[in-house]
Order: sequence, then C-alpha cells, then structure tokens
Amino acid sequence: MSPEEFRELGKQVVDWIADYRAGIESYPVRSPVEPGWVRDRLPAHPPERGTGFEQVLGDLDEVLLPGITHWQHPAFFAYFPSGASGPAVLGDLLSSGLGVQGMLWATSPACTELEALAVDWLAELLGLPPHFRTDAAGGGIIQDSASGAALVACLAALHRASGGRVAAEGITGRYAMYVSEHTHASLARAARISGIGEDNVRVIGTDPRTRGLDPQELDRAIAADAAAGVVPALVCASIGTTSTTAVDPVRQVGEVCRERGVWLHVDAAYAGVAAVCPELRWISDGVAECADSYCTDPHKWLLTNFDCSVLWVADRGPLVQALSSTPEYLRNPASESGAVIDYRDWQVPLGRRFRALKLWSVLRWYGAEGLREHIRSGVELAREFAGEVAADDRFELLEEPVFGLVCFRPRYPDLDPAAADRRVLDRLEALNSAGNAYLTHTEVDGRVQVRMAIGAAGTERRHVHATWDAIRAAFFG
Amino acid sequence: MSPEEFRELGKQVVDWIADYRAGIESYPVRSPVEPGWVRDRLPAHPPERGTGFEQVLGDLDEVLLPGITHWQHPAFFAYFPSGASGPAVLGDLLSSGLGVQGMLWATSPACTELEALAVDWLAELLGLPPHFRTDAAGGGIIQDSASGAALVACLAALHRASGGRVAAEGITGRYAMYVSEHTHASLARAARISGIGEDNVRVIGTDPRTRGLDPQELDRAIAADAAAGVVPALVCASIGTTSTTAVDPVRQVGEVCRERGVWLHVDAAYAGVAAVCPELRWISDGVAECADSYCTDPHKWLLTNFDCSVLWVADRGPLVQALSSTPEYLRNPASESGAVIDYRDWQVPLGRRFRALKLWSVLRWYGAEGLREHIRSGVELAREFAGEVAADDRFELLEEPVFGLVCFRPRYPDLDPAAADRRVLDRLEALNSAGNAYLTHTEVDGRVQVRMAIGAAGTERRHVHATWDAIRAAFFG
Repeated sequence: MSPEEFRELGKQVVDWIADYRAGIESYPVRSPVEPGWVRDRLPAHPPERGTGFEQVLGDLDEVLLPGITHWQHPAFFAYFPSGASGPAVLGDLLSSGLGVQGMLWATSPACTELEALAVDWLAELLGLPPHFRTDAAGGGIIQDSASGAALVACLAALHRASGGRVAAEGITGRYAMYVSEHTHASLARAARISGIGEDNVRVIGTDPRTRGLDPQELDRAIAADAAAGVVPALVCASIGTTSTTAVDPVRQVGEVCRERGVWLHVDAAYAGVAAVCPELRWISDGVAECADSYCTDPHKWLLTNFDCSVLWVADRGPLVQALSSTPEYLRNPASESGAVIDYRDWQVPLGRRFRALKLWSVLRWYGAEGLREHIRSGVELAREFAGEVAADDRFELLEEPVFGLVCFRPRYPDLDPAAADRRVLDRLEALNSAGNAYLTHTEVDGRVQVRMAIGAAGTERRHVHATWDAIRAAFFG
Repeated sequence: MSPEEFRELGKQVVDWIADYRAGIESYPVRSPVEPGWVRDRLPAHPPERGTGFEQVLGDLDEVLLPGITHWQHPAFFAYFPSGASGPAVLGDLLSSGLGVQGMLWATSPACTELEALAVDWLAELLGLPPHFRTDAAGGGIIQDSASGAALVACLAALHRASGGRVAAEGITGRYAMYVSEHTHASLARAARISGIGEDNVRVIGTDPRTRGLDPQELDRAIAADAAAGVVPALVCASIGTTSTTAVDPVRQVGEVCRERGVWLHVDAAYAGVAAVCPELRWISDGVAECADSYCTDPHKWLLTNFDCSVLWVADRGPLVQALSSTPEYLRNPASESGAVIDYRDWQVPLGRRFRALKLWSVLRWYGAEGLREHIRSGVELAREFAGEVAADDRFELLEEPVFGLVCFRPRYPDLDPAAADRRVLDRLEALNSAGNAYLTHTEVDGRVQVRMAIGAAGTERRHVHATWDAIRAAFFG
C-alpha cells in the first residue's frame, strides 16, 4: 500500500470511525450473537489473492459489528469503563504509523524519553511522591495491564526477598503473598506464574464495614509465616477493588510492611487516576511513605485506550535486576553508559510499542482541568444514581459510592437468598439482552450485587436516567 | 473530542503519516540524539489547561522526529524488520476506534472469533498441522511478543511436568529447561520469571557447521537431569535464531522430547512466517509430529505492525489449566457453557485489544500471493547481497543466507582478533552515525559479525546496493 493509497483509505477509515462514534447509540450495547455467529459468516480459508480494503470495511459492517459489544457506548456500565477518547485514538494511530520499537533507549530514543516524561507528568498530576519519578531513584513505565504490572512487581519483590537469588536459582523455598478476598485475581495469578503458587497466597480478613484489609491480621499472618520458615514476599493493598471499589487502609498496611520488611504493591488500577482531583487525593494516603510499587490504569477511567497501565516503583533496582539480561545482539553504547532507561528490563515482553504517544495526546488535549472534569462528572453521576437507588425502597444500595461505581440489588423479600440471587441474575440478563444498557454483577458477602460503573467518555445524565428506568422495569416490571 | 472534531483531526493525522512515509528517506535511519535531548525540549510539567491537537503534531515534528529511529525506513537493516504496512496500520486504527476489550468471548464476541479465524487462516497459509487450529484440540492466539509466548508455553509445560501441581503449590522441586547458546534470551527469561531459575537452563551444544542444537547431547542432558531428580520441563528448538537465523533440527530434537516426555516449544519468531512460501516450508519439518507449542511473529517479517506474535498449542488443556481462574465478576453464561474461547486464559494480561483486525487486514489485502512475494523479495535481495559480499575478498561471509539475514565481517588480517573486532564495531558505529543505513552486530564463535537484515516493507534493490557501497566505504574507506 503506497503512501497515497494509505492517505485515501486512511481517510475512509477515519470517516468510518467518526460515523461509528456519532451513531453508536443506535447499536445494542451488548452483542446479541450466539457462539460461532461471526466465524460462520466469514470465509473458512484465506484468500489466494489480495482484495481491496473495502473488503475489510465490508466484513466490519456486515459481520463484525453485530458481534461487537460497544465499550464506547454511553450506556456501557459493565466491568469498568475503557476510555478510548479521540486524542488517545489519534495518538495510537501516530504510534502505528511511525512503527518504531522501543525495547531499548537506543532503538528509538524519543519512544523511551516521551514515556518517561509522560509518566512523570502523570505522577505529578496524581500527587504521587517525587521518588516515583524516572528522574529519581524509582520510575514509571507503561505496562500492558495491571496484571502485567502485578507480575513484575511480584518478580521485583521476590528478587528482594530472596537476596537476589531467585533469578538464578529459581524458587527453592516457600514464599508467601498477602491479599484480601477483594484483591484482584491478577495477584493470585502472579503468584502462580512466578512459581510462588496459589496455596501460598494468604487471604487476610477485612473490616466488614469498609471491606478494607485488616492490618492486625496481616501482621499476624506475616509473623506466622516468618516463624514457619516461609518468606513473606509481597503484600497487595488495593485502592478501589474490582468488585466494589473498596479502599484498603494503605498507610496502616504499609506500616506493617515496613516493620516486617515486606514489599508493598498498591493496586489502584481503576481508582488511582481519581487522584487527579485534589478532593480525592486522600486515597493515596500512605503511598508516598510505604509503597514499593504502585499501579493505575489510564486505560480505564482516564480517557486513554487500552493498553496503558502505569506502574511506578520507589526503587528501580530490584525490578531491573530481576528482569535484565543482555545478549550480544542487544548491546549498544548508550545502554553500557548507564545514562539511559532500557524499558525492556522493566517488563515481560522484549519489544514495545510507542504507547506514550496516546497518553501524551490525552494529557495535552485535556490538560489537568479536563481530566478533573471527566472524573468529577463520573463521581457526580454515580452519586445521583445512588441517591435514586437509595430513595426507592424496592432496592438496596450497598454503600455510598466514592468513585464512579454503584453496587446495589433489588430486594426480593418473598424469596430465599439463593432464589433471590438467581432472580437478580436472570433479570440482569434480560436487561442486558434488551440492548439499551449493559451492567455486570459481583458477589459481596455471599450475595449477588449489580454493578453500575459510570465513567465512559460519552456518558451523560440522560443515559444514567434512562438506564435507571430500564433497571426498575427489568427487576420489577 | 466530538466525532466531527475526530473526523477533521483524524484526516490531518492520516496526512501526516502519509507524508512521513512518502518522505521517510530524507531522515537519518538511526536517531542521532544524545540521551536527554528529547526530554529537555519538552515542558517539565503537565499543562493545567488542554491545548489543540496541533500541539501534539508540533511536538512530533520539532522534538520527537529527531529522536526517532526509523524502523520503516527502507535502509533499516538492524535487528529484524518490524513490518508496519498500510493495511496493518489501518486495521490497528479500527481496533483503537472500536475500543473494545476481548478478555472474554462475552466481552466482544467478534474480537475472539475473528482472532481464532485469523490465526487458523495463518496456520493454513504456513502449512501448520490441523491440530493447531482453534476448531481442533489445540489453538492459536495473538500474544504481545515471542517473549510472552515463550513464558506461557513454559507455564503450560510446567503444569504438565508437575502433574498439574505448580499452579497451586508453586515450584517445590527442581525443573530444567533446554536451549542452545543461540536460543533467544526470552527463554532464559521465562525460566527466571516462572521460578525455574536461570541456573536450571541447560545450554546444549550445537553442530559447529549448522549451529543447530545437538539431539544426542540433549538426550544425555535430559537423562542426567531425570536421574538426578530434576524434572525436565521444556525444550526449545529455534527456527531462525536471532543472531544468524540458524535452524535447529526440529524433528530429531522433537523425537528426543517425545521419547522423554518433555514439552517441545518451537521458537520461529522471525523465520516461521517464511513457510508461507512452499519452497521454504521444509523449515517446519517435524513441527506437526513433535511440537507442543509453536510461535511466529507476523510483526517481524509479515507486514503487520507490532504487537502480533502468534502462539499455537497442540493441546490447549495444559495452557488453560495453568492460567485459568475465575472470580465472580468475570462469570458469564457463555464461558460456563464451554462453547467459547476466553483468550484471557491463554495469556498473562487479563485485558486484550482487538489485534486480530490488523492481521485480518494484512491477510485480506495481500492474500497468500502478496505475502509470498514479500518474503521472496527479502530472500532474493539477501542472496544477491551475500553474493556481493562473497565476491569481495576483503569481506568474509558467514554463510549463504536462507532467509533475509546476511551475516558477514570485514577481514582485517593485520590485526589480532580482539583489535579486529574493535575496529569492526567502531566502523559499524561510524556507518550507522552517517544515517544512510542502520545495521547491528552479533557475536558468533567469539567473533563479531555484522548483521544485515533485509525485509522492511519498502526495501528495494537500490537500497541494498547503496548500503553495500556505504559498507565498503565505512570498513575500508
């Protein structure tokens, strides 16, 4: 495809996306197709001869769109939002167009330097401590996901806990990780992947009121492991759990970690970006003093398309030592000089895209003001919605929302708990099948809760109101 | 950014990329900047108020471009090519524009089904065995990189070797992995990350002529480990090593693996895609009968922009069992039915982009014919270049190229080996600094070799000829 063909077809694709975004409300939010529907409508075998790009756009319109769940739909309230704003999409397009590899500083210096600066900017916007900056002892990096971030944090923690021995010797003793029942599943997965094993993940109890991890029980569990010869490797505190956006008491948890010499990873994947608003910055209390690593995802609530999860470490040493190895074909003068960051030593893959461009575009386009406005709009709509739920006594609000997520359930007083939960799930499925909105569920204290996650880029008050009408009709229609 | 603003700015970005690609030969291939050059020219602090997108394009023109090493430049001969063809860039743009998450089938069915079909198409194009297909017992998936693919293969292998125990118990005994000195560093890294440890990576000797892994020595090493109570977990055979594109004897290695019950991972990251040409399909000999997992990267030599590394497994069971865990907030009827693939169980991250769109665009646009033509052009130019090198007795050709990589070195008969190697590196650095071409080096049998990797989308005969002139001038000017 020549540059001139690209110019012409590229504009068609831009038009296609602009039309898609402008008309997105005409689609059912959740795809209605059955398994196999999409595949069955596409050719079983690859073409011998190439075809024009109109064929790709044809596949898209006729076969793929019905199989798409529209995450950018303003009535998408499932999981967490996955912001793909215009400037982010354009930043990503520039990255694809340049087509550079940023595995080493030397393989495209701008890719590394813009990333380091963009994550430093973000640290400043979120009020994170100066030692997290890439121009200090720590540093930030864009990872593919909070799962990837949790894994590398775990590897750095294992490196430190083993006195630098695991990289060479492997796991030769028992190591433990500490989480709560509300911690994201990616932590237990990091324990599996890193060879710690899921049996060595201690699930610490929580305060029944706040669902926050109990620091006293954590302290006892760490002491018991240490006494039994199990090496405590990593504690995870969450700011905004996936189920209900609960916030662990980071400072108290962190004090236990410092006392016991255990790595503290803070998983603020969803909620961390909210600290762009000064009134929400309390969520980071204790991070500056206690966190060894900290992760938040601009690709959730900060208008940046997936993947863009930012991990910061207080000290880059253990991370780089855990992951670095240099075959001859990657040696170069800049790396040997020690004057540059080689981000391949901070992540699982070797190669890397120029993801900083999309974060940069978002920070430039919206500025601090625009980002705060976006977060505040989500919080405000969530509070209003929670107010409606609380005012309707057929529903039970789990708690006042702090961020953009509202958890609630319809009361079915005539049914026993199991039957009531089944009905909630059935009615939720019917609501989602109707296509006007999409919500998911979770389980809290053994009971099903409906999750309404507000924060998609296009969501306005009218979408929340219309969905509240649809919810009442679905659960009590 | 409204859809109409996106429409207008998107076209500006498309024009920017088309102009960049059309004028790419005017840039020095390798960026000449010193560490800190880019960062020093950008604002130290984030903006309080947003700015127009022209600011991002301004940064790009004035500050970022000088810091870019142009991987899409037709005289980029460093590392391996990183194809970012027009249709791939447009497929990626569609993926960003749709902004969907494909972690589960249910979160956007088309994302999973198109990926399954695209990797099945690719398996057919490469002549890979039917049991690798997603509609059979195995299956393929797009991973971020061959490193990510090697890691999940290693986890699946550990799962199988431990009788399914490592996920829960962690690494409780010693496991070993087998590679050659030419195997990509990502395998040793997978051993570190998974808790096997780099000391348990056995480096098996190679045939000095072919640089292929020695099956007899492999067999002895596995037997010795098993006798010593070390569990042999994974053998890696390479098709096209990073240094010199050597090909291991996959069939003989695989027979040892089958005999000994050890997982065979085949790393064909760079060269595997060459099997799209029937005359090169011999490279896959033994894969059908012996490989438990197989990886090749369309993002290297197959015109697809990073990241797009395809991993296939012969049996998806161990992979999914090694990685699957389901918290309540991810439960859904489609997953419970078992009728669908949930790709998050096949990879390290939870979230995933709609990367199939770019591979799909490439397969549609070029067809089998176009892809073969691209590979053949690279092979032909490499052979011609190797012929020139062989015909000039001031140079020594390492060997006849099979793919697109030519390794060679200038002879400096008056210098001792160390001094000669230093001069090669110095002259290579000068050549790269001049900016007309970019080549990297490696070390083979203790001596420096220059690597000329041909295969970028825009490379024509004239670029190779001009670079040969520049090489002669640089090394003997």
